[in-house]
Amino acid sequence: MAKVKKTPRPKAETPKGFRDYFGAEVTGRADMLRKIAGVYHRYGFDALESSAVETVEALGKFLPDVDRPNEGVFAWQEEDDGKWLALRYDLTAPLARVYAQHRNDLPTPYRRYAMGPVWRNEKPGPGRFRQFYQCDADTVGTASPAADAEICAMLADCLEEVGIPRGDYIVRINNRKVLNGVLETMGVSDEGQAADVLRTIDKFDKVGEAGVRELLGKGRLDASGAYIDGVGLNDAQAEPVIAFLTSKGAGNTETLANLRGAVGESAIGVEGVDELEQIAALLEAQGYGPDRIVIDPSVVRGLGYYTGPVFEAELTFEITDEKGRPRQFGSVAGGGRYDDLVKRFTGQAVPATGVSIGVDRLLAALHAKGRVESEAHGPVVVTVMDRERMAEYQAMVGELRREGIRAEVYLGNPKNFGNQLKYADKRQSPVAVIEGAEEKERGVVQIKDLILGAQIAQNATLEEWKDRPSQYEVPRDQMVAKIRDILSEHGLSEAL
Amino acid sequence: MAKVKKTPRPKAETPKGFRDYFGAEVTGRADMLRKIAGVYHRYGFDALESSAVETVEALGKFLPDVDRPNEGVFAWQEEDDGKWLALRYDLTAPLARVYAQHRNDLPTPYRRYAMGPVWRNEKPGPGRFRQFYQCDADTVGTASPAADAEICAMLADCLEEVGIPRGDYIVRINNRKVLNGVLETMGVSDEGQAADVLRTIDKFDKVGEAGVRELLGKGRLDASGAYIDGVGLNDAQAEPVIAFLTSKGAGNTETLANLRGAVGESAIGVEGVDELEQIAALLEAQGYGPDRIVIDPSVVRGLGYYTGPVFEAELTFEITDEKGRPRQFGSVAGGGRYDDLVKRFTGQAVPATGVSIGVDRLLAALHAKGRVESEAHGPVVVTVMDRERMAEYQAMVGELRREGIRAEVYLGNPKNFGNQLKYADKRQSPVAVIEGAEEKERGVVQIKDLILGAQIAQNATLEEWKDRPSQYEVPRDQMVAKIRDILSEHGLSEAL
Repeated sequence: MAKVKKTPRPKAETPKGFRDYFGAEVTGRADMLRKIAGVYHRYGFDALESSAVETVEALGKFLPDVDRPNEGVFAWQEEDDGKWLALRYDLTAPLARVYAQHRNDLPTPYRRYAMGPVWRNEKPGPGRFRQFYQCDADTVGTASPAADAEICAMLADCLEEVGIPRGDYIVRINNRKVLNGVLETMGVSDEGQAADVLRTIDKFDKVGEAGVRELLGKGRLDASGAYIDGVGLNDAQAEPVIAFLTSKGAGNTETLANLRGAVGESAIGVEGVDELEQIAALLEAQGYGPDRIVIDPSVVRGLGYYTGPVFEAELTFEITDEKGRPRQFGSVAGGGRYDDLVKRFTGQAVPATGVSIGVDRLLAALHAKGRVESEAHGPVVVTVMDRERMAEYQAMVGELRREGIRAEVYLGNPKNFGNQLKYADKRQSPVAVIEGAEEKERGVVQIKDLILGAQIAQNATLEEWKDRPSQYEVPRDQMVAKIRDILSEHGLSEAL
Repeated sequence: MAKVKKTPRPKAETPKGFRDYFGAEVTGRADMLRKIAGVYHRYGFDALESSAVETVEALGKFLPDVDRPNEGVFAWQEEDDGKWLALRYDLTAPLARVYAQHRNDLPTPYRRYAMGPVWRNEKPGPGRFRQFYQCDADTVGTASPAADAEICAMLADCLEEVGIPRGDYIVRINNRKVLNGVLETMGVSDEGQAADVLRTIDKFDKVGEAGVRELLGKGRLDASGAYIDGVGLNDAQAEPVIAFLTSKGAGNTETLANLRGAVGESAIGVEGVDELEQIAALLEAQGYGPDRIVIDPSVVRGLGYYTGPVFEAELTFEITDEKGRPRQFGSVAGGGRYDDLVKRFTGQAVPATGVSIGVDRLLAALHAKGRVESEAHGPVVVTVMDRERMAEYQAMVGELRREGIRAEVYLGNPKNFGNQLKYADKRQSPVAVIEGAEEKERGVVQIKDLILGAQIAQNATLEEWKDRPSQYEVPRDQMVAKIRDILSEHGLSEAL
């Protein structure tokens, strides 16, 4: 007989570059987002949730590549009108669209925060996913440096709120206008050459001062042996860039003086230094000294993208990387001023400034420092000894839940009691409750402290084992109280 | 001179069927989700967040239509391997994929909750959007009716937790197996005819008992004058369906007796009635009486989709619709048992049961009943009277925030003071603070109670106006205390 060809079973797998998040991974992130939202809210920022889907036209950035409108984004064409739609790749492009669309109803300035997933159609790599969370706050409609200062102060507050203590982070501020002033002083007016200088500055972190000098001049042999062509400036021309990058002094006052030297007579440069001075003064007056927020001209990330002040938050403590080497944790948030946000839509320039916190990196940092509960505990498990008395077991978890204690009845096949305890183990339950026919008759329940049980099984000598029982028999009406005691002994909050 | 043709400006608009959510719309939903998650968690359910994007293959439902894999979903093709990806259309299909993929690492039974947006590629209509929230809880891996009972109890708890008081909601339970038993008794074994009967039953809500009788028989002239063909059963054959649909008695005991009559000797039917009996007994033992959760065979929604018990939560209070007519609010949640969830992937049947709460409908219900703060207040606004003293104004909001009071400095152009008050008005600020040079010299600040001011402006006579000033002068060091007083007078929590 011929076999009927069946449709093959679908594969149970996420698409490449996507992943699932379980239990504490989800609630840990939700907690962090809630704390950050609380700070944003207290600063007067309003929540905004735009849709995940935008027209490719509104997202904009990818339009030049007309043949492949889905370059970098996930995009598809509407069936009825042929319009291209796409998943948002960040939260800033949608903000521009929202502000342009609703500007008559929104207050000016408009302070808004947004948090949620964004999508990038990129080649996934280890630890690099095509869906990840962003958590942004932006102020649209004011050019005042007070808005930039406020964003920086709020960023520092957010880091402390989620558990990064003062001293373990630093917010660094730089200004694109200062760099523009430096370029002006150098006599670099050609846009191509200016872009070359920017690209070189971006390598400062990697190649250092000497490397930047070479790259601004004739060029440089890189580590791989390849020769990198230089920008072709002479030494004197290159000097102001070096002065700019290395102008960080012992304090903001000294740094600002050095920057004034670097920009010389350039009007835009002087404006940039003035802005930094105002920001630093506002922050210091509110108690955000340079131990938390500092002017640092070596911050180059984002200088190409932003139009004014740029900010970056770094965690300064060391962690051990996967090869066991100590390294600084690095950047967890960045932002700055970008003034052409809304212009694409309305033709009118609207000044804006904002910050984006990398929630997943920040969570990773807290995990690395052991500052979040990595060992998540499951619920109290009430075992089923007698299938007919399911209602009574349900009543037990009801009592526990009413007292705020997370609890559940075992709902698998109760025949094999070992399986029930294995289940409690897999759930990382702190406590199991047992009430068989014999206990029922005597009006008691057995309460197993599973955390202590595991500790004893691992470490205890026979003597200790005898001295420290991990199972207690208590009258039925003392069940909740005893479980509460056990949980608090282990430092577990009732809600687990 | 020839004009250079410019690219037209992009339109600032959401794609058709999508919308933006602002301020209290976002935080109100987040609060509700947090409360529901709290109940789910207390019941031992674990959070799961799967990616928004799945392979079309894994989503499954749409596969038969091979030529247009994006029927009903938003789908696109990967560039490198040609695979079709799509946005999830619910949270159940991803759960099936996750369970099949991770089943060796997950506990059995696996209780999980999930909340987030889902997407439907459908024609949008008024109030119908192509992105909306779902909030699900499911138990995978147990066939026990105790799992169904638990879901129903949890659903009732969730409704009360978000502010629907007892008496304003009812959870109704029915069972697909009972209907299957009825069909067996009727001698309907042909699948096509069974499907016809199911479709007819689905119209019970609309056409009532008499209508269903006609539709099961020869057919029926509908309201529009069109003749609807009937299923073609004779009166005797149709009787058990009618008995099933109308078997609701004064209490669960009577209903169950009626159902036993309707299913006769059918084994599957008896099994279904037994399950309902167990569920009712478990719930009543825990105090969930028929005033909250009741067996109701007239619940027909979902009977075609689910394989065992089905649940539906309805709000029973009346609201006024857009035409001013009173109507019942209706369904806000539904669910049931579906046992073929994971089989598509693994070939093994895995029993599962769950519920989905329609968060947006539930929010609408709370709004309709005035049970959520519809008038959201903005932050306290500190006005800027003297641009040079920005740092001092920033210090004021700093003090307020440290006391948990939401506050901001006006960051627009401060020249026109009227604009500052207009801004505070647009922000729905409860309080504005004013400190000009003269106040500064005398060590005081002016505090405007904007809520009282608006009330007076609307209602007060001249006498009252004189008696009830809405602006106070207080010493600078009493600013926070005075603002706290004003907020509490208006019943506003400090966090606003």
